[in-house]
Amino acid sequence: LPTRLPAVGTTVFTRMSALAQQHGAVNLGQGFPDFACDPRLVDMVADAMRAGHNQYPPMTGAPVLREAIAAKIARLYGHAYDVNTEITVTAGATQALTTAILCAVHPGDEAIVIEPAYDSYMPAIELAGGIVVPVAMTLDDAGYRVPWDQVQAAVTAKTRLIVVNTPHNPTGTVLRDADLQALADIVRGTDVLILSDEVYEHMVYDGERHASMSRHPVLAARSFVVSSFGKTYHTTGWKIGYVAAPAPLTAEFRKVHQYNVFSVNAPMQHGIAAYMADPAPYLELPAFYQKKRDLFRAGLAGSRFELLPADGTYFQCVRYGAISDLPESAFAEWLTSEIKVAAIPVSPFYRQARESGIVRFCFAKKDETLHSALERLARI
Amino acid sequence: LPTRLPAVGTTVFTRMSALAQQHGAVNLGQGFPDFACDPRLVDMVADAMRAGHNQYPPMTGAPVLREAIAAKIARLYGHAYDVNTEITVTAGATQALTTAILCAVHPGDEAIVIEPAYDSYMPAIELAGGIVVPVAMTLDDAGYRVPWDQVQAAVTAKTRLIVVNTPHNPTGTVLRDADLQALADIVRGTDVLILSDEVYEHMVYDGERHASMSRHPVLAARSFVVSSFGKTYHTTGWKIGYVAAPAPLTAEFRKVHQYNVFSVNAPMQHGIAAYMADPAPYLELPAFYQKKRDLFRAGLAGSRFELLPADGTYFQCVRYGAISDLPESAFAEWLTSEIKVAAIPVSPFYRQARESGIVRFCFAKKDETLHSALERLARI
Ligand SMILES: CSCCC(=O)C(=O)O
Ligand SMILES: CSCCC(=O)C(=O)O
Repeated sequence: LPTRLPAVGTTVFTRMSALAQQHGAVNLGQGFPDFACDPRLVDMVADAMRAGHNQYPPMTGAPVLREAIAAKIARLYGHAYDVNTEITVTAGATQALTTAILCAVHPGDEAIVIEPAYDSYMPAIELAGGIVVPVAMTLDDAGYRVPWDQVQAAVTAKTRLIVVNTPHNPTGTVLRDADLQALADIVRGTDVLILSDEVYEHMVYDGERHASMSRHPVLAARSFVVSSFGKTYHTTGWKIGYVAAPAPLTAEFRKVHQYNVFSVNAPMQHGIAAYMADPAPYLELPAFYQKKRDLFRAGLAGSRFELLPADGTYFQCVRYGAISDLPESAFAEWLTSEIKVAAIPVSPFYRQARESGIVRFCFAKKDETLHSALERLARI
Repeated sequence: LPTRLPAVGTTVFTRMSALAQQHGAVNLGQGFPDFACDPRLVDMVADAMRAGHNQYPPMTGAPVLREAIAAKIARLYGHAYDVNTEITVTAGATQALTTAILCAVHPGDEAIVIEPAYDSYMPAIELAGGIVVPVAMTLDDAGYRVPWDQVQAAVTAKTRLIVVNTPHNPTGTVLRDADLQALADIVRGTDVLILSDEVYEHMVYDGERHASMSRHPVLAARSFVVSSFGKTYHTTGWKIGYVAAPAPLTAEFRKVHQYNVFSVNAPMQHGIAAYMADPAPYLELPAFYQKKRDLFRAGLAGSRFELLPADGTYFQCVRYGAISDLPESAFAEWLTSEIKVAAIPVSPFYRQARESGIVRFCFAKKDETLHSALERLARI
């Protein structure tokens, strides 16, 4: 069988989770919490099943959930998406990203991806027949930054899409208003679209605000804004996401969506919609995770790891040059098997694996899990 | 935004369900039951959430569910798929179909589709850059049949895939062993793959058996066999399906799958796996639906509709030539708005809409729903 994705193997997340299990390591690799979601949310999904929400929901998503999503975006980012024509519920963020790429990128089109990049963007562009144009973030003592001049330089007549991600996985970088402005200056007057992965939207720390594309009129008018409930509600295994986009983009998105998954789990949609009536869970999330970030950073402060900034997401990147000169994947494997703490190397987030001597830890864990990992890491 | 799917509008199912609601019609259109699923199944999903199955399940599917699926197939069809390398859980059957098409059909490849065909096959082939080669079923008093000689004649050096569907939506036709043999004779010695949509596998009536591709060694060795739990467990809105395929096909399937949806709702997978421990619900399904089919056919026997055979699925096709010479879509709309019974025209299941004077009714409804529809239909 000839392959469409020659470069694709098992994802680094699957590999490292398996290795963590094999070695009984504390798993700070794959990004998911080790604590329970809110039992009230579980009850609301169970109630939805018992209320009979078990047959095909509308292809575009349950109206109650689309309304709750639109209301949340309007409240937080000040953009009023139309509930019927601009919001679509998806089977998780990955499905939203890949579907958006399939409709925006046609064979031969170029798509700019900012590296390091979440591992689904590039294969999805290749699946669509597009050409990936990577632009690497710069890295200095202030952390990873997007070099907008290089993004500008990468735009050609064939550029159809720029993929952005804020808060950024794996680096924790959050875009600022000045970044939105720079991006708007690049795309204004072109027909370049934007795909924005904002699944960590509620994990921005130190009083900063999330720079959603929805906030910026020039960007909102040409963006597929993708988010999900997995990170926000501690339910990464529920796989319910959404895309908000102007009506013409949404119309095209839905053409592909309806033949990709047709529609999305109905009781989960109804349960989440009911839960969203109370904004407290997502409003309280930054404080909740900032405490964990601070705990984790404080624990590593006296260690031989060098902390990089961690302004958003539930990830902390660290330099390990004072410990080892192993390549990142080998170091992550050594950490897992010998120190019994799993981490994720950053190198696979680049198109051509790039060695920066950095690994990523996930701090979306119980405090006791973080303490036991820190104890092991500090001993190195 | 240039479109990838120029021919795609809103599906006939969405349109007719909306029309049914607008006119307060009995909805025998879109295929879903109007009765509740088993409350024990709901409890098992709720239990899975409470047991903490709320984070990313393995990309390939929860092992307990893959085991239950493999055991069911082995029991019913005598083929032993490997749990780890040959079964993948999907976000419903549509996602399985489209993902299989994306990996089997490359730009310029031809894919044979037997018409009338479920509406996702052809757009998915176009999305993959493939060329749809339709072959129409023949229709006589014995019902719809697949003309294997014409399928054979349609095979060229560029043919990469044949899409089959048994029991067949919308016609209710079920393939027999002789059909499997004919298909095996066509593909033997070629590199043509088969995609088999078997979501109605447990709805085969009159003591016949389901002709799964899994039964036939030549076919099983080159087939993606797709099914789901929506039809079987009266939960069309849960969107959990699967694909069974030989290891090399599964490996390729998973490359696309992991960047399409990554993984599938975890608590639903665990709940369904627990429910599958008892085979009774699917073993009893043929008798359950055969009674409804017989009730519906008996009710129409004295009407001006002419019944076509209904050997499988939960659909009944009827000729309406004695009532009207409207085209099918117009007749279905008239039935919905004037008679207050929604049906689905068969014409949109053809690439070039073809008028046969036939509409499809779904009899997966409470007996009282069927009685109230029959009363209206018999009055015409
Ligand atoms: C879909 S598995 C990866 C989870 C995740 O977002 C991450 O660890 O980066
Ligand atoms: C996915 S909506 C269509 C449901 C169905 O299978 C049908 O009515 O044919």
